[in-house]
Amino acid sequence: MNAPVELLPRIAPRPLPAAMLEALKAHFGTRCSTARAVREQHGRDESPFDVPAPDAVVYATSNEDVVAVVALAQAHGVPVIPFGVGSSLEGHLLAVQGGVSIDLSRMNRVLHLHPEDLTVTVQAGVTRRQLNDALRHEGLFFPIDPGADATLGGMSATRASGTNAVRYGTMRENVLGLAVVTASGELVHTGTRARKSSAGYDLTRLFVGSEGTLGILTEITLRLYPLPEAVSAAVCHFPSIDAAVRSTIQIIQMGVPIARCELLDIHAVRAVNAHDHLGLREAPMLLMEFHGSPSGVQEQAETVQQIASDLGGEGFQWATTPEERTRLWTARHHAYFSALQTRPGCRAVTTDTCVPISRLAECINDTVAEVDASGIPYFIVGHVGDGNFHVGYLIDPTAPDERGTAERLNRQLVARALRLEGTCTGEHGIGLHKMGFLLDEAGANGVALMRQIKHALDPHNIMNPGKIFTW
Amino acid sequence: MNAPVELLPRIAPRPLPAAMLEALKAHFGTRCSTARAVREQHGRDESPFDVPAPDAVVYATSNEDVVAVVALAQAHGVPVIPFGVGSSLEGHLLAVQGGVSIDLSRMNRVLHLHPEDLTVTVQAGVTRRQLNDALRHEGLFFPIDPGADATLGGMSATRASGTNAVRYGTMRENVLGLAVVTASGELVHTGTRARKSSAGYDLTRLFVGSEGTLGILTEITLRLYPLPEAVSAAVCHFPSIDAAVRSTIQIIQMGVPIARCELLDIHAVRAVNAHDHLGLREAPMLLMEFHGSPSGVQEQAETVQQIASDLGGEGFQWATTPEERTRLWTARHHAYFSALQTRPGCRAVTTDTCVPISRLAECINDTVAEVDASGIPYFIVGHVGDGNFHVGYLIDPTAPDERGTAERLNRQLVARALRLEGTCTGEHGIGLHKMGFLLDEAGANGVALMRQIKHALDPHNIMNPGKIFTW
Repeated sequence: MNAPVELLPRIAPRPLPAAMLEALKAHFGTRCSTARAVREQHGRDESPFDVPAPDAVVYATSNEDVVAVVALAQAHGVPVIPFGVGSSLEGHLLAVQGGVSIDLSRMNRVLHLHPEDLTVTVQAGVTRRQLNDALRHEGLFFPIDPGADATLGGMSATRASGTNAVRYGTMRENVLGLAVVTASGELVHTGTRARKSSAGYDLTRLFVGSEGTLGILTEITLRLYPLPEAVSAAVCHFPSIDAAVRSTIQIIQMGVPIARCELLDIHAVRAVNAHDHLGLREAPMLLMEFHGSPSGVQEQAETVQQIASDLGGEGFQWATTPEERTRLWTARHHAYFSALQTRPGCRAVTTDTCVPISRLAECINDTVAEVDASGIPYFIVGHVGDGNFHVGYLIDPTAPDERGTAERLNRQLVARALRLEGTCTGEHGIGLHKMGFLLDEAGANGVALMRQIKHALDPHNIMNPGKIFTW
Repeated sequence: MNAPVELLPRIAPRPLPAAMLEALKAHFGTRCSTARAVREQHGRDESPFDVPAPDAVVYATSNEDVVAVVALAQAHGVPVIPFGVGSSLEGHLLAVQGGVSIDLSRMNRVLHLHPEDLTVTVQAGVTRRQLNDALRHEGLFFPIDPGADATLGGMSATRASGTNAVRYGTMRENVLGLAVVTASGELVHTGTRARKSSAGYDLTRLFVGSEGTLGILTEITLRLYPLPEAVSAAVCHFPSIDAAVRSTIQIIQMGVPIARCELLDIHAVRAVNAHDHLGLREAPMLLMEFHGSPSGVQEQAETVQQIASDLGGEGFQWATTPEERTRLWTARHHAYFSALQTRPGCRAVTTDTCVPISRLAECINDTVAEVDASGIPYFIVGHVGDGNFHVGYLIDPTAPDERGTAERLNRQLVARALRLEGTCTGEHGIGLHKMGFLLDEAGANGVALMRQIKHALDPHNIMNPGKIFTW
């Protein structure tokens, strides 16, 4: 789908100087490609935007490689855009001003695993599944799960979260330190392996969520967690989405340390039933997971079951073996792609608002009423324990009316979330699509502060230009 | 105690222009003071530095007041230094370049309490005890406890933590949003009340820990927690400091969600016995607290007792009523002042290193050997669950030899902590004293990044100048 022109920032590609390309080819040989297929693969993500591909792609295998590309880019005034697996949702890695895509997927080594300190340092191209495979025999895991098998570099750059964040926090809380190549082509290390520090400005958290606009993350030091002694998952069906949401609110307000608390609305449940023949009751559903000691898990589960029952929740199904849990979580993991298949040829425009937990029922109920009235097919899934949910508007990409309606609904939803003291993006980031929403949320003076930092750290605007805010 | 001259950054006070003082007096009347006693009270903290007092003190009662002072300061090129209760330990609020101290202690209102969302917004002058008094009837609490009854503004500005951080995190994890007056005299709001967000640069965490050098925090939105259903505290004595530390390491590595895990060495125990007649066994001691459901607390306590017993821990004393717990925690809270009284006329030079948990035994054991060999009296207390501990060197302020020895020991300890992949400051901040250590820890290019941010946001260096790094 082409995004409506008015949604895209003004695109002003800078031509790639021949001298820069020659220098890249000389340095990287076959690891520098200008093949159309390679460039196009690095010029799209899961966003609906269609912009020209980058001028070249370099496959980095070391910090020194990244330093070399950035130093050349700085000398020639050429944009550089980091690329992991291309799973970003907001156009983060699109070459809106041309330039060089630096593919970090070959920087995929787990560098230093310290099970005794519950820390690990990985190269930016390691994906979360690869990391968890490397950790399993140590009895440890890294909980942040944004759905896609994204790289830890990409997850850090977008401040990702996902299903386990309600208990374990987001990338914000779980990145201890970074190696970053700055715009001047220097390798800087931020943070330490200590759990806390008051040593100067929090550069680590400035780079986490900066979407490649301040530097390229090449190594990430993360907090790990012991695999819980006991894990139990459950689904519960509710007479209304409101009842499901109100149960969630009470669970959080009671302080239950629930590990996952995911909502699927009736449309999402129908879609996964059709796709995976799961035979789930076609009603709004919460999917939950509890981590802890066996008795702790039981205690949490009993509290939650009581809350849900009081609000009309029924049909509790429990899963304690890994196989049973996988079956239940299939519903959540397949929701997006199952929903796409309910309307052949459609595309999803996805929202990402997050509000304080007490406002969640109001936010979702008003949104449902609005989208129901619009006639656009949709589904809702959400990390509701955090107050975060996604509406997927399933639009016909050839029908401009539908596209316009979806964007209007999105704007109304964001305005509602901001009014309820929430955010336009819980976990996807700003990228290209939400630059206007960021202005609404952070205010002109908040965005001006961000811009001052960008100008100071990247004075020639070569680091992933055209994202988050205008230059 | 005067700090050795070579430890202080070069002091170059800027004279306060008469026009600025006139404007302040006209605007603030009696809320602007140049009385010597008032200035001197605002010109010292708990650090050992002795520098000239600020030129004037303004008592702010609103955001507008702070904006007015900063706007005048910007126009006249005069430093402004925020002041809470004066409990900082590293000279953060000393007027090393002269200027105006902005006393925020009268901005002490709890503005918006949202028990249903576990959030609160307070003015920067609210202290942590005042906040917890306001929360108690809601069944909520704010866990961060740095010892002193500091203001939430000061705690945010230094990225404070303290006894509960091992379970609840530090100010880094618990500040959701801020109102900040920037160097240009603008009021900027950062963050929202949502639990997570990916909306642009993390300005909130950039200001948290910036020690007043980037802006003045005037309002803070915090995460709150339900008061735990059950709380249990215990002390346990160990045959050696090594055994106490190794028990801590195992407790953390097992993933026990302990709420507090504090070490007192034999010198600290002797000091509190002498001061408070507590009759504690004179041996290294862990003071622990467990939060959770009654059965959860019991489970944690049993695990911990088993670990400690295996390492020679004995004499477990339990406290479950608030009164019993208060008695036990007296030992920890009085350690610093009790230790000062063991050597009449002495001053404490306090360290603040924090290392990965597995390195803690090595770090403490080598430190103990070194300080024992030096002959300087000392004590050790620590938030050991985080890998953070403080050595207090009890020196005779009139004996230059002792002062020099303490500083040498401090340098050796910081070098050791950095070698062990830790930090020079877990919670006190850089201030004046640790600027050299920050260079060692963050590297010249890390500090250069911080300086670029400072120059961008405060181009005339009026916000608490002379702290964290040189201009």
